[in-house]
Amino acid sequence: MTLTDVDIAQAHTLEPITEIADRAGIPADALIPYGTTKAKVDITRLDDTAPTGKLVLVTGISPTPAGEGKSTVLIGLTDGLARLGVKAAAALREPSQGPVMGIKGGAAGGGYSQIVPMEEINLHFTGDFHAIAAATNTLAALIDNHIQQGNALGIDPRRVTWQRCLDVNDRALRSVITGLGGPVHGTPRETGFTITAASEIMAVLCLATGLEDLKRRIESITVGFTYDQRPVTAGELGGTGALAALMKEAINPNLVQTLGGTPAYVHGGPFANIAHGCNSLIATRVALQHADVVCTEAGFGSDLGAEKFLDIKARSGDLDVAGAVVVATIRSLKYNGGVAREDLTTENLDALKAGVVNLARHVSNIQQFGITPVVALNLFTSDTTAEREFMRTWAKDFQVLLAEAEVWAKGGEGAEELARTVLDNLTGTSTQLYDPARGVEKSIETIAKRIYRAGAVEYSPKALKDLQLIRDNGWDDLPVCISKTQYSFSDDPTALGAPSGHTLHVRELLPRTGAGFIVALTGAVMTMPGLPKKPAADNIDIGADGRISGLF
Amino acid sequence: MTLTDVDIAQAHTLEPITEIADRAGIPADALIPYGTTKAKVDITRLDDTAPTGKLVLVTGISPTPAGEGKSTVLIGLTDGLARLGVKAAAALREPSQGPVMGIKGGAAGGGYSQIVPMEEINLHFTGDFHAIAAATNTLAALIDNHIQQGNALGIDPRRVTWQRCLDVNDRALRSVITGLGGPVHGTPRETGFTITAASEIMAVLCLATGLEDLKRRIESITVGFTYDQRPVTAGELGGTGALAALMKEAINPNLVQTLGGTPAYVHGGPFANIAHGCNSLIATRVALQHADVVCTEAGFGSDLGAEKFLDIKARSGDLDVAGAVVVATIRSLKYNGGVAREDLTTENLDALKAGVVNLARHVSNIQQFGITPVVALNLFTSDTTAEREFMRTWAKDFQVLLAEAEVWAKGGEGAEELARTVLDNLTGTSTQLYDPARGVEKSIETIAKRIYRAGAVEYSPKALKDLQLIRDNGWDDLPVCISKTQYSFSDDPTALGAPSGHTLHVRELLPRTGAGFIVALTGAVMTMPGLPKKPAADNIDIGADGRISGLF
Repeated sequence: MTLTDVDIAQAHTLEPITEIADRAGIPADALIPYGTTKAKVDITRLDDTAPTGKLVLVTGISPTPAGEGKSTVLIGLTDGLARLGVKAAAALREPSQGPVMGIKGGAAGGGYSQIVPMEEINLHFTGDFHAIAAATNTLAALIDNHIQQGNALGIDPRRVTWQRCLDVNDRALRSVITGLGGPVHGTPRETGFTITAASEIMAVLCLATGLEDLKRRIESITVGFTYDQRPVTAGELGGTGALAALMKEAINPNLVQTLGGTPAYVHGGPFANIAHGCNSLIATRVALQHADVVCTEAGFGSDLGAEKFLDIKARSGDLDVAGAVVVATIRSLKYNGGVAREDLTTENLDALKAGVVNLARHVSNIQQFGITPVVALNLFTSDTTAEREFMRTWAKDFQVLLAEAEVWAKGGEGAEELARTVLDNLTGTSTQLYDPARGVEKSIETIAKRIYRAGAVEYSPKALKDLQLIRDNGWDDLPVCISKTQYSFSDDPTALGAPSGHTLHVRELLPRTGAGFIVALTGAVMTMPGLPKKPAADNIDIGADGRISGLF
Repeated sequence: MTLTDVDIAQAHTLEPITEIADRAGIPADALIPYGTTKAKVDITRLDDTAPTGKLVLVTGISPTPAGEGKSTVLIGLTDGLARLGVKAAAALREPSQGPVMGIKGGAAGGGYSQIVPMEEINLHFTGDFHAIAAATNTLAALIDNHIQQGNALGIDPRRVTWQRCLDVNDRALRSVITGLGGPVHGTPRETGFTITAASEIMAVLCLATGLEDLKRRIESITVGFTYDQRPVTAGELGGTGALAALMKEAINPNLVQTLGGTPAYVHGGPFANIAHGCNSLIATRVALQHADVVCTEAGFGSDLGAEKFLDIKARSGDLDVAGAVVVATIRSLKYNGGVAREDLTTENLDALKAGVVNLARHVSNIQQFGITPVVALNLFTSDTTAEREFMRTWAKDFQVLLAEAEVWAKGGEGAEELARTVLDNLTGTSTQLYDPARGVEKSIETIAKRIYRAGAVEYSPKALKDLQLIRDNGWDDLPVCISKTQYSFSDDPTALGAPSGHTLHVRELLPRTGAGFIVALTGAVMTMPGLPKKPAADNIDIGADGRISGLF
């Protein structure tokens, strides 16, 4: 019988979180326990010392349906570093609860490279997503109430851009009409719900440096426009102090442990397309203040998560990235080389050769930021000796650092070679790709040409109008957050491998003045997932003893 | 300068929750800390012994805009009992977060009779309401997904009765159309959101005896009807194990403390009109297993909360009520006697005499359940000597037990006389008013005539149709939960005092097959509040040190 992730996690005896905190160097009076195996770290009780740890950014090749195991490698790597005697910590995103009910899966690693307690991390955790939803939906209520109570600001109900959110996969909430039922029940208007991870307040939480900065960012959120097209901020509505008060606990990073007993800060989980896709800046900083090496991840491949990590999060938080890992699997490279999903377990050196260009492109992208990446080849049992040999030769030929890792089955022990290679190459001093002061159009062009290797950028009429609006309102110097398919370097999800010379089509630009970036939409982006025909919820159960089954 | 509730609460030094738990008799291994001053009690780690404590039900006269201070008296009384050397505990409802942002106020007592940490109890607390909302909204997503994915059960989208919920005061969500945007985004249908306290899952949580019973009740929820008018249950949709798993932590009662250091179980908060309005049965049972005297409250007056406590919760949970307190204030009695709100602080013995009939009716109602109530006269500084003397004489003349209490200003010390009177009269053995086996119509008639003192009950054509549906589906033996205005014994909110001979108008009957009762609507019931012109959120703020201000 094959053990599932939840079986492995439940069979493990967790250390008390007080011991993990002690090992992490978190003072006891700053620890807020949530049960005995998870806690929050009270940032108001920490000294604000300069971070001294080295930061390792874990990214991956372009995602494929085969799965790359980026979080699993990150967790195994952190445990591998700890096994080498390094004071290591992981900084990770919190999983979204909606998808847990939808498609089997989560974001707590896998096998013997997991963060635990995995059931609690995947279900509610310490309530951060709920706090974000409460703040998001209270802001929505304040907007509609303002309109209802006389609309002193002259908000145009047709131009309210703020959406409600829920951490539930629910396609029926994508597009709704609210305020029906007559005059005492509000003004009917078209709107929608996103999943909580897509709320701007999630991005705000993840970029804030503290409570005051959080409040300032919430005040700066653009919620819509007046009848005469003037932007309206949350600050103008009032109630932003209450929204920040709702985030009092959520702003504190969560501390849990890996199966290897290494401290893991798991905090915040913004989308990696319409937002920047990394855990909170506060968690990363706290980790860097207390550990010598911190492994952190960014969503999707180097073109999305890593670029945004460096150009948005690292810029905003003054972070330096010392090393990087690009996670790849032989299966995913073959998929990028054109092999169908069902044939991925068959040896195919031609496909591997065709697909490895995708990896090379991601390696090159990371190098552009001044960092020397290590390729982590996440091994699967179907990988053949010849395929592994091909990868080693490829790395040697192209002077790329590569280490195999076997993290699902072996945990930290399977990542020791990777850990050593990473440790030996923590030499980078990361830079940013573009200067936002040159304007949104220039920033988009730079990312498109240098990271996506596009030949040109085209703006739709709507996007050109948005660009004018951005300039008119003084937002043209904000960094950009490009929302693009994760499956390709181009905006065409079927263009696998390493396309170049394509045209990037910018459809629409969304000001995210609280988060402090401009989102550039280049394709349809789904901010509220749906449930599949047979939802994962069907398999989940709980016994009278409180034991959860079927979660993964 | 007058101290506000939050000032008093923040100036107080809380005892560690571990010490409160120790005093309460909760074993250390059953305590799940949420920070250092609040915790959950893991019911899977408690022995299921028969409760041995005596239960005191705190109810009140018909609520008025003047405020009666029912929770404040309850908390003061519990501290008063503790001061007399009694091993006492309070069992209370959790406050709803939506109204905290709307109208100044909360449900954590007041002055020196509060439960603390009040900011955390009022904002998110331990996440129970969010868990209930997650389960409620996941069930809604499963319903719409079932319809989307082929609709094997033949659910009529026009007859889905299940509503989503949020713990936000948001009138714009009362009536909405979901599923817009075309075929891939669902089937458009009219629906609405309630506030979380009004979700049937809240009522289910509050009546469940444990995880298995919770799951069985969730499975039994009627979510709508098929095209051929057959009821559809949540159990038929699948995913109910996942919904119960989402409630894994929420089912455990929360333990906090009063300002007097007495244990307080604060768990669950269902509406007192469309639901039964009492804290969870589990919390009450745990309190009764560990304390000698437990003070618990029911929503609104004896006609609503207390009747439902006894006929729904006590029946379902096999609870015996040993004593009762009816909270009254001189101001509220004068309001019931016809005095305008702005004149309530002026002495008016005629109005007091006219209004005291309301109190007499509530006392008589409680007596019908086999309990001898004590009237708690909650003193205000505006009460005059003559008015207090009138009340004492009235009590003597009508052989009613009465004790003055000064709980806001003096805490438990101000409730010692009340505590002694209650202790001396814990002689009751409570009964139920009606036998549900005689049918919904008979149950409604019994409550209407004996508690509301109505002369007759009239059913609307819709209600008659609902009654037939209830009989056809075998639900006719469920207890009834009458939704009626809290301001009057009749269904006319302006008929103050003690009206009798009126006609109760039943408009509609709603099967709540998970909670296990039939809701009878007798007037318009608002299950989603709105925000006022100047929301309380405007005054709430948080400092860089995490200190919340302006909450009350």
